Amino acid sequence: MATTPAAAGSQQQHRTLSGEPVRELYTAADLPPEETIGRPGEYPFTRGVYESMYRGRLWTMRQFAGFGTSEETNERFRYLLDHGQTGLSTAFDMPSLMGHDSDHARALGEVGREGVAIDTLDDMLTLFDGIDLGEVSVSMTINAPAAIMLAFYVAAAEANGIGPERLAGTIQADILKEYIAQKEWCFPIDPAMRLCGDMIEWCTLRMPRWHPISISGYHIREAGSTAQQELAFTLKDGLTYVEQAIERGLDVDDFAPRLSFFFNAQVDFFEEIAKYRAARRIWAREMKETYGAKNPRSWLMRFHCQTAGVSLTAQQPLNNIVRTAIEALAGVLGGAQSLHTNSYDEALALPTEEAVRVALRTQQVIAHETGVTNTVDPLGGSYFVEAQTDEMEQRCYEYFAKIDELGGMVEAVKRNFPQREIADAAFELQLEIDAGERIVVGVNRFQQQDELPIPTLRVDPALERKQLDRLQGVRALRDGAQVERALAGLREQAAKEDANLMEPLLDCARAHASEGEIVESLQRVFGDYTETPVF
Amino acid sequence: MATTPAAAGSQQQHRTLSGEPVRELYTAADLPPEETIGRPGEYPFTRGVYESMYRGRLWTMRQFAGFGTSEETNERFRYLLDHGQTGLSTAFDMPSLMGHDSDHARALGEVGREGVAIDTLDDMLTLFDGIDLGEVSVSMTINAPAAIMLAFYVAAAEANGIGPERLAGTIQADILKEYIAQKEWCFPIDPAMRLCGDMIEWCTLRMPRWHPISISGYHIREAGSTAQQELAFTLKDGLTYVEQAIERGLDVDDFAPRLSFFFNAQVDFFEEIAKYRAARRIWAREMKETYGAKNPRSWLMRFHCQTAGVSLTAQQPLNNIVRTAIEALAGVLGGAQSLHTNSYDEALALPTEEAVRVALRTQQVIAHETGVTNTVDPLGGSYFVEAQTDEMEQRCYEYFAKIDELGGMVEAVKRNFPQREIADAAFELQLEIDAGERIVVGVNRFQQQDELPIPTLRVDPALERKQLDRLQGVRALRDGAQVERALAGLREQAAKEDANLMEPLLDCARAHASEGEIVESLQRVFGDYTETPVF
Repeated sequence: MATTPAAAGSQQQHRTLSGEPVRELYTAADLPPEETIGRPGEYPFTRGVYESMYRGRLWTMRQFAGFGTSEETNERFRYLLDHGQTGLSTAFDMPSLMGHDSDHARALGEVGREGVAIDTLDDMLTLFDGIDLGEVSVSMTINAPAAIMLAFYVAAAEANGIGPERLAGTIQADILKEYIAQKEWCFPIDPAMRLCGDMIEWCTLRMPRWHPISISGYHIREAGSTAQQELAFTLKDGLTYVEQAIERGLDVDDFAPRLSFFFNAQVDFFEEIAKYRAARRIWAREMKETYGAKNPRSWLMRFHCQTAGVSLTAQQPLNNIVRTAIEALAGVLGGAQSLHTNSYDEALALPTEEAVRVALRTQQVIAHETGVTNTVDPLGGSYFVEAQTDEMEQRCYEYFAKIDELGGMVEAVKRNFPQREIADAAFELQLEIDAGERIVVGVNRFQQQDELPIPTLRVDPALERKQLDRLQGVRALRDGAQVERALAGLREQAAKEDANLMEPLLDCARAHASEGEIVESLQRVFGDYTETPVF
Repeated sequence: MATTPAAAGSQQQHRTLSGEPVRELYTAADLPPEETIGRPGEYPFTRGVYESMYRGRLWTMRQFAGFGTSEETNERFRYLLDHGQTGLSTAFDMPSLMGHDSDHARALGEVGREGVAIDTLDDMLTLFDGIDLGEVSVSMTINAPAAIMLAFYVAAAEANGIGPERLAGTIQADILKEYIAQKEWCFPIDPAMRLCGDMIEWCTLRMPRWHPISISGYHIREAGSTAQQELAFTLKDGLTYVEQAIERGLDVDDFAPRLSFFFNAQVDFFEEIAKYRAARRIWAREMKETYGAKNPRSWLMRFHCQTAGVSLTAQQPLNNIVRTAIEALAGVLGGAQSLHTNSYDEALALPTEEAVRVALRTQQVIAHETGVTNTVDPLGGSYFVEAQTDEMEQRCYEYFAKIDELGGMVEAVKRNFPQREIADAAFELQLEIDAGERIVVGVNRFQQQDELPIPTLRVDPALERKQLDRLQGVRALRDGAQVERALAGLREQAAKEDANLMEPLLDCARAHASEGEIVESLQRVFGDYTETPVF
């Protein structure tokens, strides 16, 4: 037998991607009591939030897309719907995510590059041109300026005669994880939390089909956290939003059923599955036992899932199809409600149409060919999966205790606690990879000389010019006095601590005020945020 | 929410790829007694043949390869070993598989096209030039002329000073499944069974590191059988070889530890995993209880696994990377000892080097990145997997009973029983696909207009000429009288019912007799085979 290094055991240390030790053998002795596992659709929901799961309805195949101006992205959206995608998911460009207009000094070279450029209501109208917003479910990945973008969206639907009560979808809007991991903010933490609360409150009253927040572990994980940190920080963020809404006087059962989550699907197959299962159990317990939710729908941890961008390699990009397929399968076996699969060329550039199609086909093959949807929670009862789920739950509560000691999540974030934990974990993993103790195929083992480049998509720099023209066109045509009045009204309400800003934001959107103008207006009241570095 | 057909449940019928019904829910009530599941490395081996499985040693990554002459394939073999492959697996061309020389009338246009052309010992020497046969494990996929090819291999090693006792590997040599499914035969069933027995007997005595047969369900499945048929017919074939060897007076514990199996990994993820687990349990029980094997190594059902060629589509070939990844994962979670992953372009042509590399990388990603090797049998205890394993076992015993009623497997094959069962199953599946009741992504759903062709490998037709020149060269240089003497000696022994033909075959190999000459010589004694059509 050829004795190459590959013939030896896989990872000498037998630890998960997150560094947790795994034993050689798990048996029935490792199982928790049967009621801890329970049944799908029943408390504590370890086995899934619905009784019939994918037999009744498949997950939503929701590919995140956006680039160039609203015109180019509108075209991609229609392409995806034509190819069997079942929901839309909007990627915004960096200036939009940071609350800058396309003509801001910091926007230069970034307009439409990694997502779509949206400056005003007019761009939002173009983005969904010809798409029935009363029918399609739309997700928007934006956080610090989420309330503004939601106002644009609601105003765009309104202009098409569709009231907010008919709109279905999700806006990410999870601001805590921005301070923890993704670092895209516009305001200090406290007013940012208020804006978030305003949105949850307004949506609870006005948008019954809308998920006003998607509490997100994805970016925490992409920043290098472990699965356990992703789970604990995300759920604790979620509980913090719940507490805030209760403090505002909302009934937990009025808003909790529409909270949703967004997790990463990293490449450690079983660790991820255990994470989703533990998340359901913890959320159900906390909502029922700690926050007294009585409506069973308030107990459900429903989640969107995206395969791990950081697991993709620029080297040998077709290998990424393999990683994404296995990560997507983990998401499905973990009971995701919707799924985004990354394109194999994303470590190199924006995805090409072909790569986007393969990513979508990955979900369709899993849904229609692999048979894994034939029964609910096919892994339920597995000694290893159940034991790992338990352990994941324990690690999560250990983090909860530490965060509570620090005075809760907002305080912990201000003191850089989760930031430091993530930085430490990322550093550990990088050391392992550098030392070759953890193999990344094509990167530190099984490299290929003389790789041929694959065709990649480059966003035409002319699109930046086009967007600036669009924005100038809007500014030239709108009623300047109306804009000023709307912005002044917004500032006035912002200065009052207990006012809800959603209606003033809608007035700004209708007046064709731009995102940057609205953000700068609010910053005059709220101030800006400066990070204290972790090290 | 956009209501596209994809948003509905996956397969309306909730049946496996093989048509078995699957229930919505499996719970602890569906589990067999704990001792039926057992522990890895312990009877009945449901959870795996070894205690430490992949923690101790990964599966062998064994990519089937061969095309052109022995020179071209030798180059590909070295490429694969250089890229981290851990064993070699030889694909022969159609004439070699059928027992024809390259200059046979029926060989025209087929020489070196779908595998390597091997006519004489000289080709075998070139095939493994520069590769240490005392070190590398070699698999050869050949059946009707298996004893001849093994003689070439042993003679080639001998010429390099390596005795048969040092050779490690497997020769497929499973002739029953040829009559059942693959239809590549040289002789009638009874003498073919004798040749097979001669090889098992000789290897038992002379080649302690060699698996003299790889009892193969792969081709049964590729011919359109269900998973249950693949399992039952393959195991029954295996038991038939065992009975034959015992009848020859061999002690079951002398040969059983070196029997090996070869199964398909189709795209129905859990059905395949249940199949491998059931196979281990049935084989262990039969060897121990029915055939009285005392050595625990005789009870072990060890298997090579190959992802399903028939699951690949010519349409949108990159989707095949997804299918292959998920099939390979099923093989690994099912406890395979070695694995071949198909290349994404195999539905179109012979695989290109790039496609072969992605296929190998698929295994490496699973082995080194997904963490599934960290614990043994991670699915053990799953309500669904254990219940499906039980059901698979029952279906298998139902087939065993039917075959026994017909007088055993050889008789059943002569009466076309398995052939008819497979044809019926293949027909049923095709009807479902044609009716759109079973979705094949890119074929009957999610098609793509205007697909761009991908680069494919075409074997240079000049290679056929080159091989004919090689063969003529050997014929010109060898000692014709020695060849005649060796062939006459072979025929003489073949006419005696109780002679073992391996030594006469080795004499023919050493005399540089060609494969076709040896087969035709034997046909003068044994006659030829004509199939009775199923319909």
